[in-house]
Amino acid sequence: MSFESMWRDLAPVGRSSATGGYFRQPFTAAERECQAWFAEAAAQRGLEVEYDGFGNAVAWWDTPSSRPSVLTGSHLDSVLDGGAYDGPLGVVSAFAALDVLRDRGFVPDRRIGIGSFVEEEGSRFGLACLGSRLMTGGLELSEAAALTDRDGVRLEDAWAAASLDPSTGSTLLDGVGTFVELHVEQGRDLVDRDAAVGLASEIWPHGRYRFEFTGEANHAGTTRMEDRHDPMLTYAMTALAANKQARLSGQRATFGRVAVEPNGTNAVPSKVTAWLDARCASDEALTELVTLIARQGQQRAERDGTTLAVTAESVSASVRFSRPLAQELAQELAHAGGLPVIPTQAGHDAGVLSAAGIPTAMLFVRNPTGVSHSPAESAEMADCLAGVEALADTLAGLTS
Amino acid sequence: MSFESMWRDLAPVGRSSATGGYFRQPFTAAERECQAWFAEAAAQRGLEVEYDGFGNAVAWWDTPSSRPSVLTGSHLDSVLDGGAYDGPLGVVSAFAALDVLRDRGFVPDRRIGIGSFVEEEGSRFGLACLGSRLMTGGLELSEAAALTDRDGVRLEDAWAAASLDPSTGSTLLDGVGTFVELHVEQGRDLVDRDAAVGLASEIWPHGRYRFEFTGEANHAGTTRMEDRHDPMLTYAMTALAANKQARLSGQRATFGRVAVEPNGTNAVPSKVTAWLDARCASDEALTELVTLIARQGQQRAERDGTTLAVTAESVSASVRFSRPLAQELAQELAHAGGLPVIPTQAGHDAGVLSAAGIPTAMLFVRNPTGVSHSPAESAEMADCLAGVEALADTLAGLTS
Repeated sequence: MSFESMWRDLAPVGRSSATGGYFRQPFTAAERECQAWFAEAAAQRGLEVEYDGFGNAVAWWDTPSSRPSVLTGSHLDSVLDGGAYDGPLGVVSAFAALDVLRDRGFVPDRRIGIGSFVEEEGSRFGLACLGSRLMTGGLELSEAAALTDRDGVRLEDAWAAASLDPSTGSTLLDGVGTFVELHVEQGRDLVDRDAAVGLASEIWPHGRYRFEFTGEANHAGTTRMEDRHDPMLTYAMTALAANKQARLSGQRATFGRVAVEPNGTNAVPSKVTAWLDARCASDEALTELVTLIARQGQQRAERDGTTLAVTAESVSASVRFSRPLAQELAQELAHAGGLPVIPTQAGHDAGVLSAAGIPTAMLFVRNPTGVSHSPAESAEMADCLAGVEALADTLAGLTS
Repeated sequence: MSFESMWRDLAPVGRSSATGGYFRQPFTAAERECQAWFAEAAAQRGLEVEYDGFGNAVAWWDTPSSRPSVLTGSHLDSVLDGGAYDGPLGVVSAFAALDVLRDRGFVPDRRIGIGSFVEEEGSRFGLACLGSRLMTGGLELSEAAALTDRDGVRLEDAWAAASLDPSTGSTLLDGVGTFVELHVEQGRDLVDRDAAVGLASEIWPHGRYRFEFTGEANHAGTTRMEDRHDPMLTYAMTALAANKQARLSGQRATFGRVAVEPNGTNAVPSKVTAWLDARCASDEALTELVTLIARQGQQRAERDGTTLAVTAESVSASVRFSRPLAQELAQELAHAGGLPVIPTQAGHDAGVLSAAGIPTAMLFVRNPTGVSHSPAESAEMADCLAGVEALADTLAGLTS
């Protein structure tokens, strides 16, 4: 099974015919189909799949060696209406890299695992890298179990419905000495550097904050403008302020998700809830940016007669990937002309595993438009295959 | 059955225990229960209920007279999370007024009907006064049938599910010579005038406009601020502009309903759809206000690299209620010290029937806070009973 044929098999799963985008939320039919594809790809290669109680999986190329094993892989879930590459490229490339190594007659000196992490995007339960956070103990089970999706379904009930027992925990990372994640780039650094593949230096710190703007519901026709307490206005000004502050400081701030109550055309809303996604070059800059946006929102709330409550739903500190590992890999891959080393503003399971003390590296594959989290996300097949070769070389270097 | 006991019976139907607000959308279980209550109230008084093919109903106090009949009543549906009074007060008061007339031994010289109009709020299918528009021919059946709710259910399918055959049309207005609607006030004019009940002079022109802001979905972390085409920003500025322009000109403009695609925390949206509710003292002022808001949105869209398309979903011209009728009623009700005559910015079935050429009057009952379209909407029992008396006097005057 070539990279191309695996890619073709996975392409229709969870794809919306209306938008061309993907809806592969965890514990949905689309994601179960992705997991079935994963199990099939493993079985075809004689790999044994090990599951944990959270929904994570690793397909092992086993050896009798007791040396610390090498884990690669990524995630199969998507954002709402996302692209085909973010996540699946790393999993498909891992199976393809294993095929390359076997074609070369290579025999690793330790176990190689291909992982699939659950709910990396946080698109259903609101917490990114849920699976890897639970595996590494970065998130308490009790905290995770109480998370709810937009329909009010609790994660613990979704687990039960998927016949998973989270109390059994995870042993998937036992004995893992190194993690390597391949991912489509989500910006255009590699385009600017004219390179098909790159190595990650670091992940920017990043947080999600819930902004709750509360006002007073009223009739949109009969209520005089000066008598209103309209939280939509407070939200609108805060969204513009967030954009402006991020622009001025070279950081990132986005309000991409909004919920309005009661959300009727002829009613002044009682409440607007909006989620801020913010990412900065340093932890201090992130705190400063969010504080500034919240303060501007508060000031406008006073003017509007509304209130604003800000809750940090998740904050990930900056991650600097293992320098010795990156240097080793840069040497291994030197024949490719040397790989550019670039930072990323996107969170990844690699960041969680790195923060948990596992030496970790990331490979990026060029994205011609830089567009991601969108049906328009893309990568050239030639670049994907260059990514597979680079991953195969990386795994060979780490297991010989 | 007193006003109070009818009010108590209706109070729990469709009420959210979380917010205390009402969800009585047409053709839902809550609205069916309201209709069953209506049929029961009619049966207890020996009134025969006549239905049409759209979901409207009239309970008739029949007489052998062939004189043009008098219709009263209002609607039983609510906005999303609405109050108890908007609509039901007019229907309950109509039954109570009939009880008052019978207690007085009054015998009308023509038929009196108590109407319940379907989907007055437009909270499910997006078009206000749907039932009365269909009854008067102000809306084509084919146009209505194709309307969809938020879940994509077509109105024609909702009708079929409710065993209604809209092709049979409506004969409920045949022979109706006058319509009188009693309604809770949705502002504080009567509070300022220290009056329990008032008469309506006119309804401001009013429109609903769909604003579609289209941009480009992208990753909220990795996309540089300057590379974005974020429709949320265009929307936010337009919402602030609408509020400002309405405030400056003493009109009303509200964005109370918003839908974001894909609505994920870590994605720059591809599209924001928002609905503008605008109401002005004259038709010209309404056109001018909406044009100005749309122009400011367009200008911001150019700056954001997004696009804005504006569609008028419904526009109701101003309605001036019958002056001879109002003068007659003011005289009838003079014993109450004379009723203040006030305009309203809210649309009503009374406006639709008036525009269709039926002499129409409206009675308003004082609303101590002015709050409406909200769980906090309220009226004093004493004022409600004063409304019942005024309506009884009005009906007596029109039928003797």
